Amino acid sequence: MTSPLRRRASSRDIRSESRLSVLHAVLRAKEASRAEIAQVSGLSLATVTTVVSEFMAEGLFAEGTRIVGRVGRPTLTVRLNPSRGYFVGVDMAETSLRVDVYDTALMPVGGHEIPWDDEAPSAIIDGIETLASTVLGEAGIDRTEVLGLGVCLPGLVQGTSTTSIVPAWDWHTRDLGMLRDRLGFPLVIENPLKAVATAELWFGRGADSSSFITVNLGTGVGAGIIVDHTMLRGATNSAGEWGHSLLMLDGRGCRCGRHGCVEAYIGAPGIWRTLREIDPSHALAPVDNQFDFMVGLAAAEPDAQDATVEETIARTGYYLGSALADLVAVINPEAIVLTGWTSWLLGERMLPVTHDTLQQQAPGRSADDLVLALSTVRGTAVTRGVALTALEHFLSTVGLLTTRTAIAL
Amino acid sequence: MTSPLRRRASSRDIRSESRLSVLHAVLRAKEASRAEIAQVSGLSLATVTTVVSEFMAEGLFAEGTRIVGRVGRPTLTVRLNPSRGYFVGVDMAETSLRVDVYDTALMPVGGHEIPWDDEAPSAIIDGIETLASTVLGEAGIDRTEVLGLGVCLPGLVQGTSTTSIVPAWDWHTRDLGMLRDRLGFPLVIENPLKAVATAELWFGRGADSSSFITVNLGTGVGAGIIVDHTMLRGATNSAGEWGHSLLMLDGRGCRCGRHGCVEAYIGAPGIWRTLREIDPSHALAPVDNQFDFMVGLAAAEPDAQDATVEETIARTGYYLGSALADLVAVINPEAIVLTGWTSWLLGERMLPVTHDTLQQQAPGRSADDLVLALSTVRGTAVTRGVALTALEHFLSTVGLLTTRTAIAL
Repeated sequence: MTSPLRRRASSRDIRSESRLSVLHAVLRAKEASRAEIAQVSGLSLATVTTVVSEFMAEGLFAEGTRIVGRVGRPTLTVRLNPSRGYFVGVDMAETSLRVDVYDTALMPVGGHEIPWDDEAPSAIIDGIETLASTVLGEAGIDRTEVLGLGVCLPGLVQGTSTTSIVPAWDWHTRDLGMLRDRLGFPLVIENPLKAVATAELWFGRGADSSSFITVNLGTGVGAGIIVDHTMLRGATNSAGEWGHSLLMLDGRGCRCGRHGCVEAYIGAPGIWRTLREIDPSHALAPVDNQFDFMVGLAAAEPDAQDATVEETIARTGYYLGSALADLVAVINPEAIVLTGWTSWLLGERMLPVTHDTLQQQAPGRSADDLVLALSTVRGTAVTRGVALTALEHFLSTVGLLTTRTAIAL
Repeated sequence: MTSPLRRRASSRDIRSESRLSVLHAVLRAKEASRAEIAQVSGLSLATVTTVVSEFMAEGLFAEGTRIVGRVGRPTLTVRLNPSRGYFVGVDMAETSLRVDVYDTALMPVGGHEIPWDDEAPSAIIDGIETLASTVLGEAGIDRTEVLGLGVCLPGLVQGTSTTSIVPAWDWHTRDLGMLRDRLGFPLVIENPLKAVATAELWFGRGADSSSFITVNLGTGVGAGIIVDHTMLRGATNSAGEWGHSLLMLDGRGCRCGRHGCVEAYIGAPGIWRTLREIDPSHALAPVDNQFDFMVGLAAAEPDAQDATVEETIARTGYYLGSALADLVAVINPEAIVLTGWTSWLLGERMLPVTHDTLQQQAPGRSADDLVLALSTVRGTAVTRGVALTALEHFLSTVGLLTTRTAIAL
């Protein structure tokens, strides 16, 4: 080729997009006619009919029972076929291990959570295998019925299947290969922030907003960014590491090695540090378990006139609002959804000052119509989100989707 | 409809995307065969052939003269038809007004720049009309040959044609309507950051990167964010206002009203303030024109051992690298391209410390392969970018593209 043209990567696979839209519509509605699917997906009825047939041929969809239309020929609906198989979601968090099993309609059929404090890959692999076997056994599911398993690991999940590395725990491709071999299921690896945002996209805010940000507040903090119904992954799958963007240049040391990160102020240990800065002699200052500390902070009644607690919550809300204003400045989403255990414990208390700070600090009128709310997707959002990613991967193995970014082994 | 389904907005118009890909390929190559266009666009030859015919029917494309292929039947190429008409780009900046005229192939055919310091809409409208008439007259272009005009205004360009507001200068829909009526051309309004990123997408970094960020450094600073070959506009068209994200909570006052914004440290007045903080008695401290100050700063030779100048440049490079690390944390682009007059004057000097700071502060390995470079699109990137937006708008008026976000009147 003699011209200076260069390859423009085909950014999206159109058939894959159509199938994803149909699946999304049916998962959300649980049952829908082809006309209804066409209406919400924006696809033509002909395309919907084709895609539905493809999903039926794979056993993913089944004929529904609801009849649509009061006049003329009744129209049948379609629904997910829950007995097609199961997807396992694993949330290997910093202090706990949770395994949930979902049917093809992404409804939970069993799950367990245990405390965890061992960082060795071999111990983690043992732990996941044991807990998954227990959960599957209790649910009466045979291993052959499992179509895929998704594991969330803390830290950056970077690169492709051959270069996967989780720096926080020093996992390498070899470890991930061992995990796959021991479990014996098709495996996807995901970052928990992206899993939560996936769950929010399919079962929460995604119904109302094409672009939103899921902000996770816990030990660590971070964001899952959805732009135009699609996860923003970035060049190395690490988009959304907002917890390690600056709140304060050269400020508090962060465990990532940088100084002044958002996480150093609104991660649970950062909030604890704020309280100790305000009053080192406060009753909560010596509580050395971050979860116990946060429960104690949340339990202090607003009318108890504990000025240190009120000031800690107010400052944290101000830090959060300022940091969210930065997300609005750069991304300008339709909505920001708060999730994670700090959100459940302190969210309602922080929201007023966070909202006001965000409105004051966001550029121009960019936050006038912004929705700032706690997520309605509670409990097992991480395992549900990563089970969805495992479902997407399964669909790619049967030729129905093109997935390019999740790490699949 | 009885199901809980909701409308999922059709996120992209597929035919429109295909046409944009073909136009992009031909604009970049200047001349290409249909097979070459198919190769770089990832489209089928059949689609390319159809789209090329559509563009030819509108007079946008013409048969080229280059013959491709040494064996068999020679293949004709296609090219843009420069005589189809002209597009005018206007850069109404804070201290200058620039008007350039481009042919359909986006090649410049004339232009002028004059100083400007009047913020009244009526004066600006007079100024744009007078300068545009001068430029068109000098180029011998009749007004009927102008297919569209794009104007960049500083500040946030928000909303649709009925709610357009530019807060920085307090322009409202009425003023924009007056501008359109006085000029008499189809009009698009754009933010200069997005215009520069559009030029970079079509004529610069966009050849090599599907996702990149154009960072503009001048009086103000900001970013144009390209994700998956597409401008990130956000809910209210204000994505990319990174200049008003935090470098330092409660830090230096910014002219936007917030404290600690990136712009307050690396906008030209911020750099001046840094120098005055380091040495209030330095010869450059009393220079009260920011451009003169910056030229003076850039003119100081590295071997002149002016410690204040070196420290000012080093600190600015550190601020810039830290702030860019935040963009990498959140967006994780393939490349960051620096543009704007501060970049031209100080970019080469700042790049080493900026690069090192960015590498140290970006999360994990997310910046290992990041390209950080000065833009190769110089001079009139703003007017060229907004002329491209005017071209896209023209294509939408003849039914060839679906544009949804640019403000068109």
